Formats: sequence, structure tokens, C-alpha cells
Amino acid sequence: MMMRMRSMAQRIGEVLSFLVLALLCKANSAMPSWWANLPHDNASYCLSWRLAVETNNVRAWRTVPIKCLGYIETYMIGGQYFRDLDFIMDQILSYANEIIPSADGMDAWILDVDDTCISNVIFYSGKRYGCDPFDPAGFKAWATTGGCPAIPAALRLFKRLVDGGFKVILLTGRDDETLSEATIDNLHKEGFIGYERLILRSAAYKGQSAVKYKSEIRKQLVEQGYRIWGNVGDQWSDLQGECLGNRTFKLPNPMYFVP
Amino acid sequence: MMMRMRSMAQRIGEVLSFLVLALLCKANSAMPSWWANLPHDNASYCLSWRLAVETNNVRAWRTVPIKCLGYIETYMIGGQYFRDLDFIMDQILSYANEIIPSADGMDAWILDVDDTCISNVIFYSGKRYGCDPFDPAGFKAWATTGGCPAIPAALRLFKRLVDGGFKVILLTGRDDETLSEATIDNLHKEGFIGYERLILRSAAYKGQSAVKYKSEIRKQLVEQGYRIWGNVGDQWSDLQGECLGNRTFKLPNPMYFVP
Repeated sequence: MMMRMRSMAQRIGEVLSFLVLALLCKANSAMPSWWANLPHDNASYCLSWRLAVETNNVRAWRTVPIKCLGYIETYMIGGQYFRDLDFIMDQILSYANEIIPSADGMDAWILDVDDTCISNVIFYSGKRYGCDPFDPAGFKAWATTGGCPAIPAALRLFKRLVDGGFKVILLTGRDDETLSEATIDNLHKEGFIGYERLILRSAAYKGQSAVKYKSEIRKQLVEQGYRIWGNVGDQWSDLQGECLGNRTFKLPNPMYFVP
Repeated sequence: MMMRMRSMAQRIGEVLSFLVLALLCKANSAMPSWWANLPHDNASYCLSWRLAVETNNVRAWRTVPIKCLGYIETYMIGGQYFRDLDFIMDQILSYANEIIPSADGMDAWILDVDDTCISNVIFYSGKRYGCDPFDPAGFKAWATTGGCPAIPAALRLFKRLVDGGFKVILLTGRDDETLSEATIDNLHKEGFIGYERLILRSAAYKGQSAVKYKSEIRKQLVEQGYRIWGNVGDQWSDLQGECLGNRTFKLPNPMYFVP
């Protein structure tokens, strides 16, 4: 009963997050189902495009196809993105629930930060949901504000992992020198409290691809004795390379591609 | 102009294939858009489920959730499945077009057979599109008939690869002893002519997981000097393990999971 009420409260919270996003982003708030207003051929094409992106069949793409702007906007803020996240988080939790962490405190999970724990959807709403090319300076300014909201399903996962005795290691490509403080504050403010480590990209890894940088860090963690049970990210580059962990989980993100 | 007409003829062929399938499977042939008849919540859940399956977030699943029967049926025979395949095949071809095969004749592609080159959708229409558990005897009887139709987009890929100077190696988990002849006849009848090899599962690999068996075969091919440029399959077990090739491509298949 308690669980149900908590889950209902959570859901209301998510719905409120949507509403705020929807108002911010001038979305059609009277949408009966998230695809209803899209012409059939476009929706069909964009659904194929999104599947191909999420399965890593389309790689190194720079922008969302312009004809998918309406589709991606509706996907991101019309509810399906959050439903997809919820679904995957439930999968992750049912896997995590099968593991009994040992007493040595070395059972670890790797979580990416951007669009895995905290959301950049508000920023990308100003970039036509990825139809505009990546704007590094704009993104840095946005990240510096520390205003990325928690992804509700991710916060739920994070808390259960920490409560369940796992060491949660947050691994991000964000620049250590310039974004460390803002990122720590942002995560703290949004409820990500109790993680083992937050690893940002230090000068030594500057200019490296995410696959190489994150592989190297995971390798170090494994050498330090951590057992990586799960590895969660919104980019395939989070989930490829070495020392991937026992299972990887791809969260949806049709807005941008990190090599 | 010639290309356009050929592509139009191809599309008409695909539409005809649909119609036959639709009639066979008692589908609603007056569907204006492939999701229109589904209740919103169900479609939304099933879309999340399908995304999670295709991204390998849900693993070792045995049957399609029964509440997704209508959704998966409509996906498979209502057009979106073929549109998704077409989209991916275009991606694969644009990658293949960048490669110039060398004169030694060792530039290879690996293609899976079932639901990659030839389709089992007709068989699965009698198994509630995967809502019923896998029926090994029934599948063997079906495969023995040699009546699997070509997947139009796959045949297009196959022909362009062969014409382009690649060695196409068909690698399948089908049993060599009992299904070799029927498979060869089936592929030939459906237009898959000119492949380098068709490798079926011989007695030595019986009982092994697809990942292990296919890894072992690919390793042998690489040792024989083949350069695997691409590896195409509908199962993640086609695309995991060793000697994967330069790029892997996941085709959609929400009907069953092969470990």
C-alpha cells in the first residue's frame, strides 16, 4: 500500500515535470496520443530513424533530420520518452534485485550523467531537439547554471542502488576543470546523494573519444577491485569498449550522438 | 530514371508481399495508419517494450507480452517492420558503398539467414507473433517446406553486395544434418544466388549458444584471411562475441529471442 502510494506520488511528480517542460517548450498540451498530430509518412520515417539510432545502426549522425523535428519534440515531451525510461529502469531494477552485494563493498554500478541521471531536454528544446548542430559554448553555459532536472526514473534507480548496498560511480565526459563544481551542486540539488565517486574528464583525457576515455576509467576501477554489475548510459559510446560490466543498458536519446 | 522505375517496381513488389501476408494472416486491411486501432496505453507500453527488446535491454525473453499481440501483429504486417528494414538496409548500403573491395577476393560480409535474408513471419502468424512459446518441431517442419519468402530489402542488399565484389557468407543456427537441403533450395528459389558459403550448424556445435557458435565460425573465417566488413542479423546473439566484423547491424525482430 505504502509502495503504491509512493509510486503514485512519483508518477504525479513525473506528470508535473512534463507539464513544466510542456509549458516551457510550447508543446501541444491537448495531445490525446503522442503521435496523433503527425502526418503518417513522416511519423513512420521518423520511427524508423529513431529505432535505427537507438540500435546503433545509424552512427556519427550530427543532427536530427529536420522533417523529424515535430516527431522528436513530441517523443521527448509528450510522454513516450519518459515511459520508455520507466520501462527500462524497471528492467534494470529487476536485474539489480537478483544481485546480493557482498560485504567487501566493491559491487559497483556505472551511471553516465547527462541525459542518464539529469536531463538536458530543456536546453535541447532551444536547439530544436537536436535539429540544430551541437553548440559547445551554449551547452557549457547551460551546464554551468546547474539547472538540469533529475530524470525521475533515474533518481529512483540511483536511490535503490545506493540503498541496496551498491557503490554508484557517476562517469561523465564533462570537463573536470570548468564543470566540476556546477555538476556536483546540480546532482546534489536534484537528490543524487550518496554516490561513491563522480568522475569528470580530467586534462589527461582531453580530446579522447568517449569510448576510449570511459574504457580507460572503467579499467582503472576494475583494477582497483570494483565489480561492475551494470553500466547505464544514453550513448552507445558509454557502453562500448573495455571493462563494460556484467550488463549494459541503453537509455533512449534521439537528440544527439556522442562519438 | 531506370533506377527510379526499378525502385518503384521493388516497392510494388513489397506492397504485394504485404497484401499476401495480410490476407494470410487475417489482418485488418483497411488500416489508415499502423497504430490507429490500438488503445493508447497498450500501444505506448508495447512501443517501450519493443524499443527495450531491440536495444537489448530486455534479454532472454521467452514470449511477447500477450497484451502486445495486436501491436506486434500490426507492426509486423502493417508496414512499419518493412519500413524499418528498408531504412536500415539503406544505411548498410551507404556504408558498403564506401568500401572498395580489393583484388584478393577476401572482403566479406556475414549475413544471418532466418528473418535476416528470408522471413518466418508467416510461420509466426500461426504462433500469435511470438505470444506462444517457441515450438521447435513446428519450426523444423516449416523450415523443411523451404517456403520462407525473401525479405525484399535483404535480397536487395545481398545482390548489391555480391555485384559489388564482396563475398557474402550466410551463417545460420539451422541444423546442418536435417535442414541443409531445404535451406539451400529455399534460398536459391528466393533469389539468393552467388553467395560464397552457406554455413549451417554442424554436429560439433550442437547445443552451443548462438554467440559461441557464431563467434567460433567467424574466428575461423578471419583465420582463413577474410576481412569481415559487415555483420547483419536480427538477433543480438548474431552480433556479440568475437570477430564481429568492422560494423554490425541489428535488424528488427520483436517475435522471438535466440540466446
